[in-house]
Order: sequence, then C-alpha cells, then structure tokens
Amino acid sequence: MPAGKHMTDEIDQQPAIFADLLAAQHEIAEVAGVIARRKPRFALLAARGSSDHAALYAKYLIEVLLELPVGLVSPSTTTLYGARPDLTDVLLISVSQSGGSPDLLRVTESGRERGALTAAITNNTSSPLAEAAELSLGIRAGQEQAVAATKTYSATLLTLYLLVDAIRGGDGTRARALPELATAALSERGAVDEAVQRYRFADRMVTTGRGYSLATAQEAALKLAETSYLSARAYSGADLLHGPVAAVDEETAVLALNSNGRGGESIREVLDVVHARGADICAIGSGAAHSAAAHRIPLPDCAEEVSPVLEVLPVQQLALGLALARGFDPDSPRGLNKVTKTT
Amino acid sequence: MPAGKHMTDEIDQQPAIFADLLAAQHEIAEVAGVIARRKPRFALLAARGSSDHAALYAKYLIEVLLELPVGLVSPSTTTLYGARPDLTDVLLISVSQSGGSPDLLRVTESGRERGALTAAITNNTSSPLAEAAELSLGIRAGQEQAVAATKTYSATLLTLYLLVDAIRGGDGTRARALPELATAALSERGAVDEAVQRYRFADRMVTTGRGYSLATAQEAALKLAETSYLSARAYSGADLLHGPVAAVDEETAVLALNSNGRGGESIREVLDVVHARGADICAIGSGAAHSAAAHRIPLPDCAEEVSPVLEVLPVQQLALGLALARGFDPDSPRGLNKVTKTT
Repeated sequence: MPAGKHMTDEIDQQPAIFADLLAAQHEIAEVAGVIARRKPRFALLAARGSSDHAALYAKYLIEVLLELPVGLVSPSTTTLYGARPDLTDVLLISVSQSGGSPDLLRVTESGRERGALTAAITNNTSSPLAEAAELSLGIRAGQEQAVAATKTYSATLLTLYLLVDAIRGGDGTRARALPELATAALSERGAVDEAVQRYRFADRMVTTGRGYSLATAQEAALKLAETSYLSARAYSGADLLHGPVAAVDEETAVLALNSNGRGGESIREVLDVVHARGADICAIGSGAAHSAAAHRIPLPDCAEEVSPVLEVLPVQQLALGLALARGFDPDSPRGLNKVTKTT
Repeated sequence: MPAGKHMTDEIDQQPAIFADLLAAQHEIAEVAGVIARRKPRFALLAARGSSDHAALYAKYLIEVLLELPVGLVSPSTTTLYGARPDLTDVLLISVSQSGGSPDLLRVTESGRERGALTAAITNNTSSPLAEAAELSLGIRAGQEQAVAATKTYSATLLTLYLLVDAIRGGDGTRARALPELATAALSERGAVDEAVQRYRFADRMVTTGRGYSLATAQEAALKLAETSYLSARAYSGADLLHGPVAAVDEETAVLALNSNGRGGESIREVLDVVHARGADICAIGSGAAHSAAAHRIPLPDCAEEVSPVLEVLPVQQLALGLALARGFDPDSPRGLNKVTKTT
C-alpha cells in the first residue's frame, strides 16, 4: 500500500461524512433538547490531543452562541489529585474519537457522580466513554485507519456545532452548504501543492489564528508535528505578540488561519507585525486574499462560526503532502498508537 | 550596563519579595474573606502571556483545593464577538502584571456588569484593571525593568496560592519556607551553568510537566522563546504522548519539570518513553534525581502545590544564561515591549 493511502482516503471522505451528519440532525436535536431543558449554567469540556482542539472550538461556540461560562478540564486534577468539585448545573462534554481514553472515562464518571449533566461525543457509541455518559452522540465518521486524525476531527467539529446550534433552537442552517463547500475546497489542490514545495525544507513553523480559528491553528501545529516532525507551535494572535514574536524571524514559516469574520480581521493586524519581522506567511481561508501573506490558500466563503470545519481541509492536505515530500508515512508516524492511554 | 543586568537583578530579588508577600498576608486574607462569604460556584481566570501561565497554576489550585469548576477565559469571545454570558455566582480573577491590557480590562468590566465577583491580581494597584475590579490584590514585586517577566511571575504564583489557601481558611503554612528555599535554590548555580553549556547550541526544545508543574513547563517555553529565540514548545505529559512525541528524537532537548508529588511521579513515566526515543532530558525539581534524565537541576523539597514557585527559579536562570551565551540581551528582546496592547 502506498505511503499515506489511509490519510489520503480519509481526507477525501469528509464531504460525504458532513452530508451524513446533516442528514442525521434529528439525533443531535434530541440530545440538544435534553440539555436545553436542564438549563446548565456552566459548561466544561474534557478532551486530549486533536479532540482537545475540537473542544477549544466548542468553547468559543458555547461562550458566544450559548452565552455560558465554560472551561476546558485538566483531567489530571481528577486522575492525579482526586479533586471532586460540586458540578450541579454543569454540562460536562467529553470529546474522544475512540471513546477509550482512561483519563476521560474517569473524568466523566466522576463528573456524573458529582452532579454534572454528562455528554460524550465519540466515533464509537458503544465505547466505555459513550456508555459512562448520560447522553451520547456519534460523529458518524466511520473507522479511521490512519494514526493522524483527519475525518474524525472535522466530523467532531461539525457535530459540536450542530449540537450547540440545536441547544439554542437552531436547525444548522449555517452548516448546510458544508458538504458542497468541502468538495470544492478539497478539489482545489494547486495552492496546497505550491505550499508543500515552499515548506519542503522548513524546520520551524508557527501557526496562528484568533477566535474560532484558534482551534485550527492548534490542530495544524499538532498535525504537522506528528506527520512531518516539524517543530510547529500554535499561538493565538494575541498571545503571539506577548513574547513569542521575539522568536519569529526570516527563518520562521507562519501558517495563519484567516477566514472572513472578526477573527480573520483581527489576525491580519497580527500578520502585519509578523510580516515586518521578515517571516514567510502562508494564509489559509476565505479572508486570505486580504492579508500580508507571501503565499495564500483560498477557501470558499462561509459563516465564521463554521469556518474551522473548512479551514482544516487544506491543513490536512498540507500535512499529508509535506510528510510524503519529506519521505515519511503519515499513516504510521513513528512512536504513535491510535489510542493513547494516559491516566 | 551589562547585558541581562535587569533580569539578573530581578531574579535575585525573588526571595525578598516572597518574604514581603508572606508578611502582608492580612491583606490577602481580607480579599479572601470577601470571596469566601460570597460563595462562588464557578471560577474564571483571565490573563495573557506569562500571567496566563500563572492563571493555569491557579486553575489547578482552585479545582483541587477549592473544588470549584474553573475555566480560563478566551478574551476574544468578549472583545471580538461581544459575548455577554450570565456570570451570577462566578468568581472572575484577572491576572496582569501591568494591569494595563485593554482586552483584560474589557473582560473584567464586562464580567462585573454581568454579575461576576471580580478580582484583579496586578503589580500596579492603581492600574485601570485594578480599579475596574471589585477586589484588588497587589503582588508587591516592585518595578520590573527587564522585558522578560521573572519576579512578577513568581510573585503572582505566590499571591494566587496564598489567596486560594486563605479562601479555604488556611494561613499559608505550606508557603512559609519559600523565601529560605528560594535563596538556597538560587545560590546553587552549578547545575544551571552546566545546562547552559549543554544546550548552548540546541535549536529545538520541548518542555513538559504534569499537574501543578504544567504551568512551569509553559512558562519555561515562553521564557526560552522570548529571550533565546529557541523554538520551544510546552506539552502536558499526557498530551505529549498524544501525537507530538512523534517529533521528539535525538535532536530534541526535553526540559522536564519534576518535583516530588503526584505530578512529578506521573511525568517520570512520560520521560521513560521520551528517553527511549533518544531525546536529551534535563529534569528540574525536587524529584529530578529519580528520573531518566541525562542532566538534572535539583531543588529543595517543598509541598507539591507550591513547588511551581521554586521550579521557575532555575528556569529563569537557564533562560538568562542561554540568552547571554548566545549573544542576546534578555533585558530587551527584539520585537517586544513591556506592555502588550492587544484588543
């Protein structure tokens, strides 16, 4: 089997998975109905790895669209220190592709015992995590064979968006065009292929985004590190200017997520500073044309709150392309297993 | 003035600042009393840059010692998207050395309007942030002249510890030895000097820690990036095994925070994996002697929940030493200002 065959196939399956999720919205609406009736006052999200980036996206959705205060759980406060906070009125959403992480299982079980309304978002609705939570939603992505998560990541994002939108009484209108837009985004390979050539020998990469797109910046750094062994590091645009910008120079490649919307407008000011320092900027997204970038990977326009679902597609193609160009097999990165069992 | 003079002096001032903070505990106890009487049910922390790492430390303290659910605020949900969540029963702690960040000011003002009990932790109690919050605590660090935060970081950690301990009725017993222990830690320069020689030509560094020490790992990555322009990236021990470990190899220097306690025990299992991949590990902390590290910077023993206050001292010395060895002036890193005004 050629190197990267699984990852290639799984990237290409995404438009169909999005369509499938949109067709199954009634299931999501049922879970959303239960959550809305319980009127949570505070939300917590628990996740690891790529799923933690999906959780960060959900954090923005919940703060902005549901107007609830929200936090990302540090599982070690439960697993190492045995903290048992009072979670009355708390919605605890655990996000795990496999549903098999022992630490998330313990956080979910402990959260449920402590009064939280627990919901598991997984790709395996008969997993221990899905069974431990009061509510369970499948992301319907089918089996993922490549070690690097692609379709499970985007399917998790879309599931979380549809869930949050349904909790506030929406019907996912703004996500409806995603299957078609994703097909268009994936078929437009020219700019990604050029980026692969451009960053073939890059050693240091900084990824950045603001607002909803910060999740994509984090996922991009992880995907590049785990498939191409690049030293990639993600910063929110604001944090980048608080110190790390000192390490950005002519030898730094900066991957910037720049979709139309408030996050994208705001990141362009950051890129002006980074550009003045001589860094090579690659802008990805529907707003990329307007930024101070030497290289651009444009994307079709969509509502800002669902743009991370589209933005990640060329990021995955870039990680795949760079890994292959550098002689690695992204389907089986050195040192990684599909399910990571941390406690 | 010799390069790094401010940073050198400010590192050395820390034991006296700790003593001063411990002597002013009655002020902290007053603020803690107000918070305890209001019985918050959730906590939120808002910060940027180094202060964000101090906030991460406080997140663990609040979850473990106060048993409250807690989240780190993404200021952009307020500043970019205008989210106005209901913050009744929420304690919002804003942490900023200067008290001058416009985005934190807006988060604090907006949080107070929305019903949160607001508290500002700053080094300038007449700053706009301190005046916008209902409660204000100074970290008593004196003026910081170096751009890289050192004494304001550790003083913020200690203030947050004493505040959280006082909220639960404690009197800071476990922190009482810190001035003396800090003096001992700072005077033991041999292992730090050897580490400076060892990592003089390092290009890629990963920092890692678990539990309370994750904050130190994040602060270490930032401090190394902003003073020595290293490509340094922090991972929690658990997240490191979820993907990024693939990018760790013989060319990677790993700085591991390893104090005695549950976080330190847990990080040693992670280091065994990293060690097997050929990485060069430098372990810092009271538990360093027990880890699979090629180089060790030992520290005196102390209670795990206050160990980040000590751990950061050799990290600061290492960042200073590496910057000087590489020919940079850590007092004025390229491209940085003392107060970063992001909105």
